[in-house]
Amino acid sequence: MISEPLPFAKLVGLDVISTSPESVVGELKVREELCTRPAVLHGGAIMAFADTLGAFATVLNLPAGATTTTIESKTNFFAAVPLGDVARGECTPLHRGRTTMVWQTRITRGDGKLAAVVTQTQLVIQPRS
Amino acid sequence: MISEPLPFAKLVGLDVISTSPESVVGELKVREELCTRPAVLHGGAIMAFADTLGAFATVLNLPAGATTTTIESKTNFFAAVPLGDVARGECTPLHRGRTTMVWQTRITRGDGKLAAVVTQTQLVIQPRS
Amino acid sequence: MISEPLPFAKLVGLDVISTSPESVVGELKVREELCTRPAVLHGGAIMAFADTLGAFATVLNLPAGATTTTIESKTNFFAAVPLGDVARGECTPLHRGRTTMVWQTRITRGDGKLAAVVTQTQLVIQPRS
Amino acid sequence: MISEPLPFAKLVGLDVISTSPESVVGELKVREELCTRPAVLHGGAIMAFADTLGAFATVLNLPAGATTTTIESKTNFFAAVPLGDVARGECTPLHRGRTTMVWQTRITRGDGKLAAVVTQTQLVIQPRS
Repeated sequence: MISEPLPFAKLVGLDVISTSPESVVGELKVREELCTRPAVLHGGAIMAFADTLGAFATVLNLPAGATTTTIESKTNFFAAVPLGDVARGECTPLHRGRTTMVWQTRITRGDGKLAAVVTQTQLVIQPRS
Repeated sequence: MISEPLPFAKLVGLDVISTSPESVVGELKVREELCTRPAVLHGGAIMAFADTLGAFATVLNLPAGATTTTIESKTNFFAAVPLGDVARGECTPLHRGRTTMVWQTRITRGDGKLAAVVTQTQLVIQPRS
Repeated sequence: MISEPLPFAKLVGLDVISTSPESVVGELKVREELCTRPAVLHGGAIMAFADTLGAFATVLNLPAGATTTTIESKTNFFAAVPLGDVARGECTPLHRGRTTMVWQTRITRGDGKLAAVVTQTQLVIQPRS
Repeated sequence: MISEPLPFAKLVGLDVISTSPESVVGELKVREELCTRPAVLHGGAIMAFADTLGAFATVLNLPAGATTTTIESKTNFFAAVPLGDVARGECTPLHRGRTTMVWQTRITRGDGKLAAVVTQTQLVIQPRS
């Protein structure tokens, strides 16, 4: 999964910087095509970025054979990320259970300011026995 | 704004079908590049689709000179939208106030099944006097 | 469960008006002790009211032997409900699946104005076999 | 406001332990009347507890003459808090702006386990000039 990115993650164009079961960090360069007007990163791109990190973090914690899907996601937006900047997302767990995992991703700008916080619930789908 | 789509809306590739102050309807063809694996519409694309409709609906209700930004967004996901299908989003108001507007977008599949519901709060930014 | 209310539901003091698998309706008289200052219904009381209706609605849809717990809840507040008024909550399903159910409760005031919308996810806990 | 608690906060029965503009900490003894069945703290009581801390934290940061109201709140529930235990809530800011403030409250059990996380947006209402 690392060597072959998901199609939508490729379209958005994020880079995964580091991964462990406790943290997944990614970066997203604010390209023109990811912007709204004025030229700042579109909220939809921020949510897509975080969703990808959260799903990835879940996969790193799944038992063998299990899969996952996002069942809900909540974002608060605080500051705009301007064109040309690089948004950084750090995804850490709030809960890692057998049935659900909940991840929180902090999106920061190049100047360190908090741009958004995304909290998402992933369902853990056990393999059919 | 209608004649010149926002860059990110163009990247995602949604079509606005109908607009009024009470309802904005759009469609999104599930192209390969919008998918996760298995090949269903990525949750991030669903949130980006809805966010665009909600911001657009807000603009149709803004007083002269005012602008808007999304301050928070919440999505529940219910069913996958498969590759090749067309997701339909219908955005209607829960609240249209002077300071905030809250919009809810129902995303349905081609077979009519509810795929997701997105609720977002838009801040109304008054022009500086 | 209907004849013997839960302790917290009793403290808050809501009345269940009608129930079916597709809808649970309740009322909550805005007593002084449920208020913030100025004297309007406390947001916490609104969330507690809705949470109780949503859990109740889930129970009406559970398979035999299953139980439920709220895993997440989201509220948007639109209008204050004044002391002495009666808040009405109508809870209807967005999704009723085997693993989760998602309910939305609309809270309205005596004058019919929408005061809040609460969306909550209930986990369906299957009996141990 | 500290010396004279709000009616609903009194009904729920929380204690404010420490306050500063950067953090408000409270405790809530899990009494029988705050429980659901089985006897664990009702989700509605958890949300009411956090809402009170977040509103209080906002008040500590308001400019002179301004007031506040909760416009939205989101809770994820992770673990039950049993009867007799003391829930601890620590509320810290994600964002403190001129128009909105966003607070996150972590609710922990006596054994230190994370029971819930509540994120709420407070509108800052400027005094009429």
